[in-house]
Amino acid sequence: MTIKINASTPYEVVIEKGALCRINDLLKDGQRVLVVSDSNVMPIYGNRFVGAEKLTLKAGEKHKNLKTIQLILKTLQRLGFTRSDTVVGLGGGVVGDMAAFASSIYMRGIRYVACPTSLLAMIDSSVGGKTGVDFLGSKNMVGSFYQPSLVICDTDCLKTLPEREIKNGMGEAVKYAVLTGDEEMLSDCLSADKVEAFIGKCVTAKKEIVEADEKDKGVRALLNLGHTFGHAIEKLSRFKIAHGVAVAMGIRVATKVAVGAKVATVENAEKIEALLDRYNMPKAVEYDKKDFIDAVWLDKKRTTDGINLVLPEKTGVCKTVYMTKQEVLKLI
Amino acid sequence: MTIKINASTPYEVVIEKGALCRINDLLKDGQRVLVVSDSNVMPIYGNRFVGAEKLTLKAGEKHKNLKTIQLILKTLQRLGFTRSDTVVGLGGGVVGDMAAFASSIYMRGIRYVACPTSLLAMIDSSVGGKTGVDFLGSKNMVGSFYQPSLVICDTDCLKTLPEREIKNGMGEAVKYAVLTGDEEMLSDCLSADKVEAFIGKCVTAKKEIVEADEKDKGVRALLNLGHTFGHAIEKLSRFKIAHGVAVAMGIRVATKVAVGAKVATVENAEKIEALLDRYNMPKAVEYDKKDFIDAVWLDKKRTTDGINLVLPEKTGVCKTVYMTKQEVLKLI
Repeated sequence: MTIKINASTPYEVVIEKGALCRINDLLKDGQRVLVVSDSNVMPIYGNRFVGAEKLTLKAGEKHKNLKTIQLILKTLQRLGFTRSDTVVGLGGGVVGDMAAFASSIYMRGIRYVACPTSLLAMIDSSVGGKTGVDFLGSKNMVGSFYQPSLVICDTDCLKTLPEREIKNGMGEAVKYAVLTGDEEMLSDCLSADKVEAFIGKCVTAKKEIVEADEKDKGVRALLNLGHTFGHAIEKLSRFKIAHGVAVAMGIRVATKVAVGAKVATVENAEKIEALLDRYNMPKAVEYDKKDFIDAVWLDKKRTTDGINLVLPEKTGVCKTVYMTKQEVLKLI
Repeated sequence: MTIKINASTPYEVVIEKGALCRINDLLKDGQRVLVVSDSNVMPIYGNRFVGAEKLTLKAGEKHKNLKTIQLILKTLQRLGFTRSDTVVGLGGGVVGDMAAFASSIYMRGIRYVACPTSLLAMIDSSVGGKTGVDFLGSKNMVGSFYQPSLVICDTDCLKTLPEREIKNGMGEAVKYAVLTGDEEMLSDCLSADKVEAFIGKCVTAKKEIVEADEKDKGVRALLNLGHTFGHAIEKLSRFKIAHGVAVAMGIRVATKVAVGAKVATVENAEKIEALLDRYNMPKAVEYDKKDFIDAVWLDKKRTTDGINLVLPEKTGVCKTVYMTKQEVLKLI
């Protein structure tokens, strides 16, 4: 399946079993390629890229920083890469965010191709052009909007994915179910005959929002459902809780706040909770409320006085609500 | 005078004697402001920004690097700046390139206002959205395309500019005269009654090219007249030769190559040389040709095999010519 994303620079998302086996055809000839991956993924899929340069990063969110970006930039410089060459990000969300960010600022932008290998990266982070790294303890605080030239999702990669990574992806998948109201999309979604359609549904949901608001000035905020609280949970767990799982936990907090703010009825909130339960998403961890709200207040959605929170009214209907720190503190 | 730039994000360039005296009106209320400037300019004009936060960088091209960008990012983070706040770049091209680059990547982009105080920054670098820093010895190797929200050129700032900075700006000004064929624009251009119109002509020339090709994939290359060789001259001089002067010297080299490649006649080349002489631009320095060509080959316009050079056919007509390293080496 191929989905076209009509961003400022249009590109295609190829979702296909075995796509990495024909990667050398998918990447056009006549240009040099640097494959950026991490120590988990490069040993498994790196050899599919014939004749490409390779750069293996240390795996994990704690290496998602400007130091690693400089390593990628130095490698590109050392290899003499030019604007007519290509960087491939091969791996999960962390690798993709960094490879894409480095691509966006090397020579003010060279061609970037995303090859997501995790469920989370396939259904969410590889599409939409948000790139970045963590900075001084804040998630994705430094980055850019930069669209890939091509996204290639090989569903075969999901077979080698550890269980915790599947759960990580399912956290974001639940987000799409709550946003779209299409709970059915989740059921048995990773089975061989459903997985392509499932990834396609998530990508299509994201596509519609990104096409309407590429630079995140309005409706795109909805994609942050669960993220403002989720980023705080990730941070307080010292990144032991994976992003997608933290997002699911963040949806629980957002649902609680929605009830308190009379955005959602108790009944509708319970339906969302039930959906999170069905996919075994953990209950929101009880952090010290002061620590939690301070971590929330590092978010990019914050203005000087308050924060824009995405709250679910019910599955299929979410809205952005502006609240002060005191108001949020009362309701969490 | 106000010139509107219709880039992907439109913005205005205000060219006005004394504009900095009403800067607090020009910057809209209700948002925080960080003024980024350098140790030369902040002491002179920093106090015009009432109630703003200030960050003073070390002056000079040698500090135009990722370390300084991190200092700006840390300052924004420490002050708790959000997307609704504003960064002002107050100074010459180096300060502007860095303040704009940091603005483009902090939270994936916060509002940026350019207050160029040098002739070069007013007529060239503050308009068009190219940002960046030097990296591992290559000029502007890391950066982004990021349009300012507003550009404010206070022509009174030119009064405090040292003579070498005036000459630096005139180097880029000669470039605009060669590109447009309007040699007359240069004559007595800094006199009180002509300076606004002169800056306006340069900005308008740049505007037309940038609007046609914001991301530098085609016609915008023409603005690099003199730059490919100029950057090499800057580098080999260890940045003792200022950018604009190096560009003028680069135009001399490009003119020589144009004659050798039969793009320009000797007669037309002599007219360009005469124009450079009239504004006291130095002759091209004689570097070792091997060193020179290697420095040229660090340029972003390079592809793996060759380089796209902007060569003048005559004043008012320039073109891009693709040449191999060997071909260029023969003609310089």
